[in-house]
Amino acid sequence: MFKTSMLAAAAALPLLAVATTGAQAQEIDDKALMEQANGLFEPIPRTIPAVRDNAVTGEKIDLGRMLFHDPRLSASQVLSCNTCHNLAMGGDDNLETSIGHGWQAGPRNSPTVYNAVLNAAQFWDGRAADLKEQAKGPIQAGVEMNNKPNVVVETLKSMPEYVAHFERAFPNIDDPVTFDNVARAIEAFEATLITPASPFDQYIEGNPNALTEQEKRGLQTFIDTGCASCHAGVNLGGQDYYPFGVVEKPGADVLPPDDKGRFAVTQTATDEYVFRAVPLRNVALTAPYFHSGQVWDLRQAVAIMGVSQLGAELTDAQVDDIVAFLEATTGEFPEVEVPQLPDRTAETPFPVTMTAE
Amino acid sequence: MFKTSMLAAAAALPLLAVATTGAQAQEIDDKALMEQANGLFEPIPRTIPAVRDNAVTGEKIDLGRMLFHDPRLSASQVLSCNTCHNLAMGGDDNLETSIGHGWQAGPRNSPTVYNAVLNAAQFWDGRAADLKEQAKGPIQAGVEMNNKPNVVVETLKSMPEYVAHFERAFPNIDDPVTFDNVARAIEAFEATLITPASPFDQYIEGNPNALTEQEKRGLQTFIDTGCASCHAGVNLGGQDYYPFGVVEKPGADVLPPDDKGRFAVTQTATDEYVFRAVPLRNVALTAPYFHSGQVWDLRQAVAIMGVSQLGAELTDAQVDDIVAFLEATTGEFPEVEVPQLPDRTAETPFPVTMTAE
Repeated sequence: MFKTSMLAAAAALPLLAVATTGAQAQEIDDKALMEQANGLFEPIPRTIPAVRDNAVTGEKIDLGRMLFHDPRLSASQVLSCNTCHNLAMGGDDNLETSIGHGWQAGPRNSPTVYNAVLNAAQFWDGRAADLKEQAKGPIQAGVEMNNKPNVVVETLKSMPEYVAHFERAFPNIDDPVTFDNVARAIEAFEATLITPASPFDQYIEGNPNALTEQEKRGLQTFIDTGCASCHAGVNLGGQDYYPFGVVEKPGADVLPPDDKGRFAVTQTATDEYVFRAVPLRNVALTAPYFHSGQVWDLRQAVAIMGVSQLGAELTDAQVDDIVAFLEATTGEFPEVEVPQLPDRTAETPFPVTMTAE
Repeated sequence: MFKTSMLAAAAALPLLAVATTGAQAQEIDDKALMEQANGLFEPIPRTIPAVRDNAVTGEKIDLGRMLFHDPRLSASQVLSCNTCHNLAMGGDDNLETSIGHGWQAGPRNSPTVYNAVLNAAQFWDGRAADLKEQAKGPIQAGVEMNNKPNVVVETLKSMPEYVAHFERAFPNIDDPVTFDNVARAIEAFEATLITPASPFDQYIEGNPNALTEQEKRGLQTFIDTGCASCHAGVNLGGQDYYPFGVVEKPGADVLPPDDKGRFAVTQTATDEYVFRAVPLRNVALTAPYFHSGQVWDLRQAVAIMGVSQLGAELTDAQVDDIVAFLEATTGEFPEVEVPQLPDRTAETPFPVTMTAE
């Protein structure tokens, strides 16, 4: 398990003194930078990672791909997981906050599903331990898919082709069509949604030519200014929790006072406005930024982070370099074929598109 | 061009006398049935068909696949072509009528995009001559994607990767990013969405074992009762217009009095409640039925057609046989890979999710 690391965040601050020296003029020592980076980060694996308590099999992945794309998991039968975690658009919806059932706007910006399997916990406040727990949330949330587990199960059981898929994915189990197994299959599919081989990954794997000079300067600045104190690990974030505004709280537009973050999960005063450090993989593709989705420009997001988390006015050149580095974390996306979903039957529940029934 | 064929529909009626004889007991003469069927229908081509005034190139198909899946063609940036013409669900949305901008319900049931390229005209009332004309409609319709051509073009031009794709798809043209070319690229992609090799196609191509005895009886009944008078050609429909209720108008639930069909296009009194004969390919996958989407059961839809178009109470056995035959028109679906869409830039217009701005 992991905990809010106020200390780790605070510890990053003294490094700032180094960061404001003229990094641009410096020659990059690739060997030293690679070594430093390898101590903080690791490459996205090139094979499907294992997940806790859920064997990732081909049958489960196939079923999960269907469920992920199936709008009949929502009450309206209009919205699928892919609506807000669009695999064609960096794994999110590029909206401030998602549009859900009845065109309601959700409370927080949709996180990307790509590489999410490598996060230590899920949601902005880490309230789900893993993707199989996470997957159950939006299906039931009134502002999202607005469905009920028993209706989901009834829907899937009404289609013999789905039942056969569940039997293959969960063999030797009586009654394999359960809400838990829906979540397990989705998690298995999501485990395949990893984006290895970015220029950054190639660099830390040992190819000094994989990054441009500017990207290397950005990586160096990302480490030296202290960004990497929170945004570390395989996903450059997604591993631990920090207050948004360690040094200075951003304005109410970016940090709405009503959303107290992890406090809602732990009911602990020190968790007010605490959020999971955002995983930064492919971040150039997932504007707008922050849990409020109020910042569309990655440069601006980086500058805000400088002030709020590091207490530093990053120079324009530093911001440009960091953004160039972040763009170099864009990896190779897996090929996903559009599934052909089972046909509804006379037993399949009807769509409920009205908000009040 | 084609015209409303009241006469053809009327001419079908005398055949009814034949239809009510006990078809179940009869042995099917495959040679005769194949010959008869080949005079009325033709198989879905196994290669991408040519389209009028639009060379279907690989570059255009690739671009069209991106545009078809891109929600940024809509004002809200929530809805794509694929939202209502879902390639995973028989090419439509399996809703009574589609849900569009601001969660508004559209006026008519969404037609399938599969094999639509083979229809003689598009929309329930045939108001678009082809798919490149059709594609422009929903993008602009207030209850659908609610966008404006100039915003679509501005959006696409803001992303250099899209501009490069347009340059490749429309070479040697100054300023290839136009609304017309958006529609042309979508049409080119849609030309690939054909579903050949159904059991029915294999049968009329000469394989007597491709259909079961019941499916053959259904095909024979479909011809003998007169269904095939309107639902003929490669798509078993989609070629010509007929009044809904040639013999007897269905109830107001199925045929809402406000929607006068092709009358709105031609302003001709004889076109009141006239619609394009629905193409019946893969119809088992595209419930609910009729332009009103009020009938979920294909058996019921067939029975209603019997009464309203043929003036015949089809027996349960006839309905079952026809439905079995219709299910045998479900073809092989093309493999479509989820595209990776270009990343937005600082110039990309923002999503407008509110209905009143």
